[in-house]
Amino acid sequence: MGHIKRVRYRTVKRQKVGERPGAINIADDALKPIITVYSYNEKELVCADGHELKVILDQFKKCTDHTHWIQIRGLNDQKLIEDIGTYLKVNPLVLEDIANTHQRPKFDEYDDYVFMVTRQVYFNEEGELCNNQFSTIVKPNLIISFEETHDEHFEGVKARLKAGKGAIRTAGPGYMAYALNDTIIDTYFVLLARIGDELDSVEDRMYSNADKSIMYDTQQLKRTLIILRRITWPERDKINDILRSDNTLISNEVKTYLKDAYDHIIQVMDLIENYKEIASSIIDLYLSLVSNRMNEIMKVLTIISVIFIPLTFVAGIYGMNFARVDPATNKVMPDNMPELYSPHGYIYALGGMVLIGIIQVIVFWKKGWFSRL
Amino acid sequence: MGHIKRVRYRTVKRQKVGERPGAINIADDALKPIITVYSYNEKELVCADGHELKVILDQFKKCTDHTHWIQIRGLNDQKLIEDIGTYLKVNPLVLEDIANTHQRPKFDEYDDYVFMVTRQVYFNEEGELCNNQFSTIVKPNLIISFEETHDEHFEGVKARLKAGKGAIRTAGPGYMAYALNDTIIDTYFVLLARIGDELDSVEDRMYSNADKSIMYDTQQLKRTLIILRRITWPERDKINDILRSDNTLISNEVKTYLKDAYDHIIQVMDLIENYKEIASSIIDLYLSLVSNRMNEIMKVLTIISVIFIPLTFVAGIYGMNFARVDPATNKVMPDNMPELYSPHGYIYALGGMVLIGIIQVIVFWKKGWFSRL
Amino acid sequence: MGHIKRVRYRTVKRQKVGERPGAINIADDALKPIITVYSYNEKELVCADGHELKVILDQFKKCTDHTHWIQIRGLNDQKLIEDIGTYLKVNPLVLEDIANTHQRPKFDEYDDYVFMVTRQVYFNEEGELCNNQFSTIVKPNLIISFEETHDEHFEGVKARLKAGKGAIRTAGPGYMAYALNDTIIDTYFVLLARIGDELDSVEDRMYSNADKSIMYDTQQLKRTLIILRRITWPERDKINDILRSDNTLISNEVKTYLKDAYDHIIQVMDLIENYKEIASSIIDLYLSLVSNRMNEIMKVLTIISVIFIPLTFVAGIYGMNFARVDPATNKVMPDNMPELYSPHGYIYALGGMVLIGIIQVIVFWKKGWFSRL
Amino acid sequence: MGHIKRVRYRTVKRQKVGERPGAINIADDALKPIITVYSYNEKELVCADGHELKVILDQFKKCTDHTHWIQIRGLNDQKLIEDIGTYLKVNPLVLEDIANTHQRPKFDEYDDYVFMVTRQVYFNEEGELCNNQFSTIVKPNLIISFEETHDEHFEGVKARLKAGKGAIRTAGPGYMAYALNDTIIDTYFVLLARIGDELDSVEDRMYSNADKSIMYDTQQLKRTLIILRRITWPERDKINDILRSDNTLISNEVKTYLKDAYDHIIQVMDLIENYKEIASSIIDLYLSLVSNRMNEIMKVLTIISVIFIPLTFVAGIYGMNFARVDPATNKVMPDNMPELYSPHGYIYALGGMVLIGIIQVIVFWKKGWFSRL
Amino acid sequence: MGHIKRVRYRTVKRQKVGERPGAINIADDALKPIITVYSYNEKELVCADGHELKVILDQFKKCTDHTHWIQIRGLNDQKLIEDIGTYLKVNPLVLEDIANTHQRPKFDEYDDYVFMVTRQVYFNEEGELCNNQFSTIVKPNLIISFEETHDEHFEGVKARLKAGKGAIRTAGPGYMAYALNDTIIDTYFVLLARIGDELDSVEDRMYSNADKSIMYDTQQLKRTLIILRRITWPERDKINDILRSDNTLISNEVKTYLKDAYDHIIQVMDLIENYKEIASSIIDLYLSLVSNRMNEIMKVLTIISVIFIPLTFVAGIYGMNFARVDPATNKVMPDNMPELYSPHGYIYALGGMVLIGIIQVIVFWKKGWFSRL
Repeated sequence: MGHIKRVRYRTVKRQKVGERPGAINIADDALKPIITVYSYNEKELVCADGHELKVILDQFKKCTDHTHWIQIRGLNDQKLIEDIGTYLKVNPLVLEDIANTHQRPKFDEYDDYVFMVTRQVYFNEEGELCNNQFSTIVKPNLIISFEETHDEHFEGVKARLKAGKGAIRTAGPGYMAYALNDTIIDTYFVLLARIGDELDSVEDRMYSNADKSIMYDTQQLKRTLIILRRITWPERDKINDILRSDNTLISNEVKTYLKDAYDHIIQVMDLIENYKEIASSIIDLYLSLVSNRMNEIMKVLTIISVIFIPLTFVAGIYGMNFARVDPATNKVMPDNMPELYSPHGYIYALGGMVLIGIIQVIVFWKKGWFSRL
Repeated sequence: MGHIKRVRYRTVKRQKVGERPGAINIADDALKPIITVYSYNEKELVCADGHELKVILDQFKKCTDHTHWIQIRGLNDQKLIEDIGTYLKVNPLVLEDIANTHQRPKFDEYDDYVFMVTRQVYFNEEGELCNNQFSTIVKPNLIISFEETHDEHFEGVKARLKAGKGAIRTAGPGYMAYALNDTIIDTYFVLLARIGDELDSVEDRMYSNADKSIMYDTQQLKRTLIILRRITWPERDKINDILRSDNTLISNEVKTYLKDAYDHIIQVMDLIENYKEIASSIIDLYLSLVSNRMNEIMKVLTIISVIFIPLTFVAGIYGMNFARVDPATNKVMPDNMPELYSPHGYIYALGGMVLIGIIQVIVFWKKGWFSRL
Repeated sequence: MGHIKRVRYRTVKRQKVGERPGAINIADDALKPIITVYSYNEKELVCADGHELKVILDQFKKCTDHTHWIQIRGLNDQKLIEDIGTYLKVNPLVLEDIANTHQRPKFDEYDDYVFMVTRQVYFNEEGELCNNQFSTIVKPNLIISFEETHDEHFEGVKARLKAGKGAIRTAGPGYMAYALNDTIIDTYFVLLARIGDELDSVEDRMYSNADKSIMYDTQQLKRTLIILRRITWPERDKINDILRSDNTLISNEVKTYLKDAYDHIIQVMDLIENYKEIASSIIDLYLSLVSNRMNEIMKVLTIISVIFIPLTFVAGIYGMNFARVDPATNKVMPDNMPELYSPHGYIYALGGMVLIGIIQVIVFWKKGWFSRL
Repeated sequence: MGHIKRVRYRTVKRQKVGERPGAINIADDALKPIITVYSYNEKELVCADGHELKVILDQFKKCTDHTHWIQIRGLNDQKLIEDIGTYLKVNPLVLEDIANTHQRPKFDEYDDYVFMVTRQVYFNEEGELCNNQFSTIVKPNLIISFEETHDEHFEGVKARLKAGKGAIRTAGPGYMAYALNDTIIDTYFVLLARIGDELDSVEDRMYSNADKSIMYDTQQLKRTLIILRRITWPERDKINDILRSDNTLISNEVKTYLKDAYDHIIQVMDLIENYKEIASSIIDLYLSLVSNRMNEIMKVLTIISVIFIPLTFVAGIYGMNFARVDPATNKVMPDNMPELYSPHGYIYALGGMVLIGIIQVIVFWKKGWFSRL
Repeated sequence: MGHIKRVRYRTVKRQKVGERPGAINIADDALKPIITVYSYNEKELVCADGHELKVILDQFKKCTDHTHWIQIRGLNDQKLIEDIGTYLKVNPLVLEDIANTHQRPKFDEYDDYVFMVTRQVYFNEEGELCNNQFSTIVKPNLIISFEETHDEHFEGVKARLKAGKGAIRTAGPGYMAYALNDTIIDTYFVLLARIGDELDSVEDRMYSNADKSIMYDTQQLKRTLIILRRITWPERDKINDILRSDNTLISNEVKTYLKDAYDHIIQVMDLIENYKEIASSIIDLYLSLVSNRMNEIMKVLTIISVIFIPLTFVAGIYGMNFARVDPATNKVMPDNMPELYSPHGYIYALGGMVLIGIIQVIVFWKKGWFSRL
């Protein structure tokens, strides 16, 4: 209907009922993984990429004094995930969560690593809402991130990594986890700015050229806001959990930045509520507009009908064929419609009609029907 | 009305008013129990089934070094329940709860056993929503489960038990309680996937071929969601209670898995909220559609009526029979409708009507009535 | 309007403004009290009844080794209440609460006694909703209950007392307080079952034979649910207060049973929420039904009007009396409605009308007006 | 519109922006103060009144062994308030709160005095809702109360003070503070009883003689309830604060009574919620009534129109003037409306019309349009 | 549409996605800063202003024994902000928050300074709602405030500073922070008073001269209230945080005043809720008014139509041309409309029509259609 794409919720296809916990179920339409490894320390940044575990292991051997960020885009390789899990001694339940991309944002602490989930929400190039999972495992000197698509979402972070300025090269994998997470939160602002613009243009359209797509479009925007709100609440809890955790992987320096990210996510929540209120207000105004339009139409119909109904009746009366003279007998019947045979009957009839019309207009005027409700 | 079955809530038929607490009241339509006993340890799995307590006692004697899972399907045997209660020294209030199948999910701890209730919610083969009670008593080396129907809901668990892989054979009755509970939670996802599909198809229907069954169907789906939500909230609390309990029947290993189940139930709650929002949004869009349709119909009626009402009146005027010549007296009355006797009166009249019509169309155009609201 | 009685809230008639706290104000329509005393121990049950304090005092003298349950039905005896208060050393504020029957459920602890209020909610024989106060004072070996009506609500408890089985004879006045309270909670289930049946029948009626009483009936049922909900929330808090209290009048055995009663009240709250949702859903469906009916009617009117309006206009045109020959001058005017004087003009006119009608039907068909919205 | 006065909220006119805290701003329409001093102990009650501070000081000198209640009605004397503040060493912020009569109910503790605010809400004699501030300062042996109007609200308390019975003469200024506060809470019940009666009469009117004032009146009552609710919530918190305070000005005896007042305020809150639900239910029923009325009217219009539209068309057909004989040429045209010249054409036409009418009635009957929706 | 300006939410333009935290991004339309320095102690007040950091440094040198309030209005000077940050050793994240003017009210404590954000909300001279950020850094003897506009908002504070009365000169920078914050809270009352007046005038208009701008205006006022509510909640939390903080920059004296400010913000929240309820109630009343107007119009149309439809039909019947005498054959057909040839047929027909009309009026009267719903 409208010009905004229908927002559908992803159906959660859970593993088979009663299956062993920890089983890795890859979605059928998942993409093949691309592995990129960034090994960096204060002095240098070494990159490598490929499609197999070997890329990672080689880099580990080559760069022993570095922090490693292993970026895996695409999840359609069950063996790779299992191998990484085995190599890094990760709990199978974590691997299941990485593959089953319906997790809410969360922060789970394990013996020597932490696991985080964030949601990437954005409109793709076709204008469809994407809601993908971004999960990271953080170990000392190591961070692995898993994404569902091959798209590039971290250009800014990579540019800062290459430039080597700021804390990014020195503050460890916890800072990198923060930087990636904060970048995703930044995209929420981009999404919200777009929603805000759409709401504005829908509202403009409502005042200038309202049609029924307004209802549809606003509902789609509202759904988008609801999806985003479903994500920001656990995201906030997640950041709170990290802030309250005393895990050594998250240094105090990183926590200072996370407090900033926490403020951002609160701002996102605020904006969502604002936009939801606007969406509701647009719907209310639209419904009122529709009802006013309807009213106006009804009023015009009523006034015109009610004025002409008695007039047409009068015309009907004088259109009756009561005979003055019976053609069969030629008998004259003077009581049958004598008006018709009065020399100025027509003038009187027209005059009477005009009078009736004027009286009606005056009555409706008095009733205030000509004012706009 | 629609193609979705009407969702009815089960009426709670409590015991008689003022009856002794602990009295076992079996519903009239309860099924006769089928007892199946699975005794297993790391090495072997021994099964037995029957309809009487003796099956259980025999198995206890035969398998002394095993964990026993006694699955009882059908509750219509008051004596059996009482005997089990007596044999295992279970509180009568627990037996009452097992028989009175309207309990909310809960976790009660007693001296040497725990009692849990879970709800099985699913569409049966006739498409009616079932909401059955699944209760378990867990003691050291022993778990008894009570179900209301004879249906098989735990094929996956039994397959894993037969295969003997994973923790299922070795992690004790607490793990089995988790496995059964988690299987039931998995069926919630199946139910929700179906509701999601139904909502999708209702929404498709709304855009392509809306009729009044949309309202009915969406309401039924909403009710199903409400029933499910009523169950998931206490279910979440229950799992939380188990996690926070320090009962030795629930080992730390089992708690790790329960945290996973906890995440699942949170996902279920999230999905329910999503689908409720969609249902509301469908209803809003449908009502707006109905109102738009109504508006359009009214507009067409109004425009056509309003255009023709004055024209018909004019035709009525010239259909009046004011006489030019009185047939009785043959007197000529030149003021009576001279238009009718003008050589081109008809042409002028038609032209005047066309003019009135065009003026009206222009006025309505200016008022924006031809645009689609 | 409908067949369900209008539900009115009881107006709270408080004591006069600024009156001394503790003043006993009996409602004008209160009933005269009937006193029944049940004195029981493990071996025997001694009953007595009457209308004056003397009955109680006599029984106290006679049965020194017993637990006494003094049941007072009807409150219209200010002196009796004051005398009981003086004899048992009860705070005047408690006596005020007993007489002023608008208290919410509560549990108040005093030095050597506790005071509890419960609400009795049920449909009386005239189908009117009653909402009466049931208050009890529990002291060691003694429980006094105050009811507003003479009706018998505790047949089950009295039968168990006579039978002498179970804990009722031995577990003290705390157990009796529990038994009475639990019996009242049981009646909530009876009330809810009736509301559930009514809602079911209203919904049946909606699908088969909807009229405007549906709105009225559903609103009355909703009000009943609201009244019940207002009572169950403080009732739950009350039971919680008792459970958390360490008063010796409430033994641990009684607390086990109270936990059961707590579960029941939670079930009652659950049912209330369920039924409220159904009531809302019935109202929504009914309003949608009304609006659909309206739509259908409008559509039929529109289609028939719109088809006939132009046809009637055409008939009006050819009913005009433009003269072919001026009767006064006999001048022939060939431009005046030549169609009327064409040999097959009538056939063509009818054919044109049929054509106009068919075109309109096709246009409306294309617009989808014949489908059912 | 309706017979209930429009409820307006008092605009809060705060002091000038950026003004010094503690500045006393008296409203322009405030009344001149009347000072009444009641000095009482167990034996005697000494009264005095006047308009100046001197009255108070004289009384202090005369009655050294008494508790003093200084009642100040009317606040339009900035100097008086400042002098009292200086004499009693009261914080200027407290004096500001006394003069700026928009405070919410609150309980503030200072070194040797406490400050309380309560709201007096009632309908005045003109039927307008008043929402005045009642503030008290309690010091050892002294309570000062400030009211906005000269009206007498504490007749009951003064009568008890004169009678000298009960705790009022002996329990100190804390008890007097309780007695005044409780009296105000009692007036809430009076207000609510009136609202309840109004709602009842509006509902009666709805069933017997509904007009559009129902919506207006119910909205005004709802606003009154909202104003009262805004006041009772902080009032409850205030009493709770007093109960939890360990200030020696509030003795344990007073606290026992305050618990009673607490119960009353909870009852008030309960009643407000009840009445709000009724108000909503009345509005829903009224809107449904309006919509039903509309429906019925539409149905009658439709049925009558739809029955007559085709009949009128048929009459229009046979009112057409297609000529059998061209008056100019006298040519007979047998195809032009032969029905008109059939001997029983009129009878057939009438019969056909009756038939069409009957068929339509049957169709509408089948469609259930004659049943009442 | 209405006379109230459309309320738009400011779009949050965050820094570029993935940018370094702490980066200062100045909005494109920010104003050039004006710096004003007020250095004051008990004895004197020294002012200075300019556009560069030098003004501040000079003043620091000149007034060593003073408290400094540096007021910076306009933020469009990235270097100035960075220089101040460097000079005062302020965390870059704080500087980012100062420049990115979308912060919620908050109170952040750092080692030797605190950072506060408040929102300035007011209608500007064009009647548009402004929502600007006011941020302050408080250090010992120093307070720096940052505003977005050049407008003067603190005339009252400056006047008190010049007058030198009260605590303002002596109570340190914490008191100045309180004074500025309280001044801003005072402007909320001004804004709310205006909203209250607008709501009042909208409601007046509704009763006297309702048109569709009522819906629009009320929605805009509601949005303003929502914006203000979004700000007051965190503002309340902020003041609470300050009150609970044990930072030495906030003395106990200042806390006493802050408790007063806390009461004010609670009053603001109360007023907002009141006005929101009024806005909702106006919308409900307006919609009911529209629907009543519609109903009345429909009723008039229906009554007039339904009365005239059968009459017009009768007139149509007697307008039919069934021939008494076939002009071609001169055959007399006595069954064709004999009424037309009865001597008083016209009188009878008119009489019949009047009768039909009267019967209809009586039926509608009985149905209560003439009463006003």
